[in-house]
Amino acid sequence: MSARKKLAEKFSWTRKHLLGLEELSREEILHILNTADTFTDVSTRSIKKVPALRGRVVVNLFFEDSTRTRTSFSLAASRLSADVIEFSAKVSSISKGETLVDTARNIEAMGVDVIVIRHSAPGAPHYLARCVDVPIVNAGDGAHEHPTQALLDMFTIRQIKGRIDGLKVAIVGDIAHSRVARSNIWGLTKLGAKVIVVGPTTLVPSSMKAMGVEISHNLDEVLGEIDVINMLRVQRERITSNVFPSVEEYTRLFGLNAERMARAKKDLLVMHPGPINRGIELTSEVADGANSAILKQVTNGLAVRMAVLFLVNQAHQGSN
Amino acid sequence: MSARKKLAEKFSWTRKHLLGLEELSREEILHILNTADTFTDVSTRSIKKVPALRGRVVVNLFFEDSTRTRTSFSLAASRLSADVIEFSAKVSSISKGETLVDTARNIEAMGVDVIVIRHSAPGAPHYLARCVDVPIVNAGDGAHEHPTQALLDMFTIRQIKGRIDGLKVAIVGDIAHSRVARSNIWGLTKLGAKVIVVGPTTLVPSSMKAMGVEISHNLDEVLGEIDVINMLRVQRERITSNVFPSVEEYTRLFGLNAERMARAKKDLLVMHPGPINRGIELTSEVADGANSAILKQVTNGLAVRMAVLFLVNQAHQGSN
Amino acid sequence: MSARKKLAEKFSWTRKHLLGLEELSREEILHILNTADTFTDVSTRSIKKVPALRGRVVVNLFFEDSTRTRTSFSLAASRLSADVIEFSAKVSSISKGETLVDTARNIEAMGVDVIVIRHSAPGAPHYLARCVDVPIVNAGDGAHEHPTQALLDMFTIRQIKGRIDGLKVAIVGDIAHSRVARSNIWGLTKLGAKVIVVGPTTLVPSSMKAMGVEISHNLDEVLGEIDVINMLRVQRERITSNVFPSVEEYTRLFGLNAERMARAKKDLLVMHPGPINRGIELTSEVADGANSAILKQVTNGLAVRMAVLFLVNQAHQGSN
Repeated sequence: MSARKKLAEKFSWTRKHLLGLEELSREEILHILNTADTFTDVSTRSIKKVPALRGRVVVNLFFEDSTRTRTSFSLAASRLSADVIEFSAKVSSISKGETLVDTARNIEAMGVDVIVIRHSAPGAPHYLARCVDVPIVNAGDGAHEHPTQALLDMFTIRQIKGRIDGLKVAIVGDIAHSRVARSNIWGLTKLGAKVIVVGPTTLVPSSMKAMGVEISHNLDEVLGEIDVINMLRVQRERITSNVFPSVEEYTRLFGLNAERMARAKKDLLVMHPGPINRGIELTSEVADGANSAILKQVTNGLAVRMAVLFLVNQAHQGSN
Repeated sequence: MSARKKLAEKFSWTRKHLLGLEELSREEILHILNTADTFTDVSTRSIKKVPALRGRVVVNLFFEDSTRTRTSFSLAASRLSADVIEFSAKVSSISKGETLVDTARNIEAMGVDVIVIRHSAPGAPHYLARCVDVPIVNAGDGAHEHPTQALLDMFTIRQIKGRIDGLKVAIVGDIAHSRVARSNIWGLTKLGAKVIVVGPTTLVPSSMKAMGVEISHNLDEVLGEIDVINMLRVQRERITSNVFPSVEEYTRLFGLNAERMARAKKDLLVMHPGPINRGIELTSEVADGANSAILKQVTNGLAVRMAVLFLVNQAHQGSN
Repeated sequence: MSARKKLAEKFSWTRKHLLGLEELSREEILHILNTADTFTDVSTRSIKKVPALRGRVVVNLFFEDSTRTRTSFSLAASRLSADVIEFSAKVSSISKGETLVDTARNIEAMGVDVIVIRHSAPGAPHYLARCVDVPIVNAGDGAHEHPTQALLDMFTIRQIKGRIDGLKVAIVGDIAHSRVARSNIWGLTKLGAKVIVVGPTTLVPSSMKAMGVEISHNLDEVLGEIDVINMLRVQRERITSNVFPSVEEYTRLFGLNAERMARAKKDLLVMHPGPINRGIELTSEVADGANSAILKQVTNGLAVRMAVLFLVNQAHQGSN
């Protein structure tokens, strides 16, 4: 940890936006993880605060419902002593016909310091970043990227496995529509992991090979060789569509259970971005078992988001 | 007050959850009230803050709408210098099929310090308390308990009457479906008050005698002998059901008005958990009259909730 | 600025409510603007906080959706180090039949220090001010007044033009239903500006002459002589009513575009209370052009609201 702390101190971070992992270098990703390392102990103190962003304002601009990610960002900002403003899009001026850019410019004009945005349109955060001066953090844009989720996944893998380079990581589920999968693929391959995406042919298009991953439609074939398995959430609203098998069939072919765990490596690390559908993508036995890092992921989400908010604000202050 | 302060300092509080008054001893209830006594003056200072929970995070996990109780808990936490996170269940992962326990475990994994929960299912807080390590405070579970409401009611009685032991307290209304009534009955009888529950036969089942109370279906018969009257709110949505008389009949038989006040003890203390239906369970004349402690109850709610948050956090820190 | 600071220090502000500009004197309005001047630099500091309202609680009691104004008040309160409670009316006791006054009295009993209220009923804030002791700030009451919007408009005019006295200010649009227009008319005329209200005959009744303004139904006739133009938002829900022309006709007759700007004074100041309907009441070219003060208005909104919260709290503390 202290070696990582020294690395974190030496690296010069210059990006004032965090839009996705596609655009980040290996060194930048590692710097975020190393910075997050320095924040992990804040959450265990009796006073869970550092004054890094005191007097700063972080706005959660969420156009899709998400208590979990929103709360994680709020708590992260709060631990950095920032003030947090919730800007729910449902009751906002957007419903009065205002454009996304006008909303963002208005928020900026109020003197806020970071905008955390979740939006159903892929590229919405990137577009905003070109229109405003204030740092933009992508908290999920359509099926495109969810960079802080992938960063906390990688942080958790490194924390438990000691490394990412050389590991075999399977991502299982509806890869085609998953921003979590896409961000993980960009990040993990840059850090030297081998990524295998696993799912039905309708949900794992062969075009994904271009992202540098291996493709499998048979979980049992890859089960024995992987070090980490990231079980994507089954979007129930998608099940009724004709690209998705029945829930029973999906669970039989791609669900993780005790029987499959018995055929996997003993120290297979089980991850899930949450919220879990118990009994569908994985059984309760696995979700709550010794190999599961699911709640650790949640805990690490705070340190990673603290690091991201801290770094983009620092880059912004430095550039002003 | 200073005698109570000394008592508060001597007692060793060990519960890290506040689930209901049924499980609390007389001494524990008195200790909460004595601790609340020490917090009453914070609200009258120019800077209404004590640093007791600085850097701690209190989550309001409300599955039923309640601005009033939620705001009271928020302000109480804020006066203890805690950060407050609102976790509205409507937009949360619960709507995505996540279980209550998974939601709570996720919140816990984010490093929060107290979860305040309101839920329509009786026993939901008790169930959570068995599944997580973080302190759980019950802010109302179905028709079961609403312990902080009863504590603030008892605090108000003691503040104005100087004692609870030996008083005659009537609770009037839909006793069968009232968590406020149940918690008050547990608490008041433990502190030595005599409780009379009053209402139509359909809303005051004779089985309630097992809780150690007297039952009456005639307000006028008990009116002359009681020291305190707690008028429950008429749930308008219940009026149309066949267990409830018409509003006019209810008001005529069980409503409190100037004429009834004239036949009561001169210093009859009038209470109501709010929000009031003016003209139904009590007239404006009575609600705003000299005997009414209704707004004092609201004010005392803050001191009582500060005490509860303070004590459960202290017990939790002590046990870690 | 320093002359204004001295003026601000000498004036003795005594009002504990801000209900509207109709009741304020010229000196009181100037005092708010001068006080806002002293707060403008707080937003540019690295720690955007002053301790003026530390330990105080500001409640946003909004009965109409408004993220923009609500957020501006929240941030203003937060910069004064106050705690902010959002009391959304949708989920509040109001929906349980509680009266507005009971809601306000309950909030007051919780020990809050300022209530900021938005309500669809004209006069709702004035009514509350008679029923509670806590300071009331009007954040918009029906079509009646929106004093902080008019104050920030006047602040922006003075900031850019150096004065208000003697300026010709046109307010264009649906004057009859606009609280922004009404508050601006009261304020601007008291500060010595000449106000011309412009719009279709159905939306600019001749009875408005009683407020001391000039009336025009032809924007092009007044365009050459005005110093400031405040373009009101077209309420899309009103367009379908028979008092409103078609959008195309409205835009053709009353919309601001490059062609009209070319016929106006070179330094015509363009304002808009937001959110903008681009292409309707003004083109993007004008909204984003050099004459536009629209985002400056948003920025100034914070300083003005800090001043208002600061002054009413001070008056309230002084009177206790």
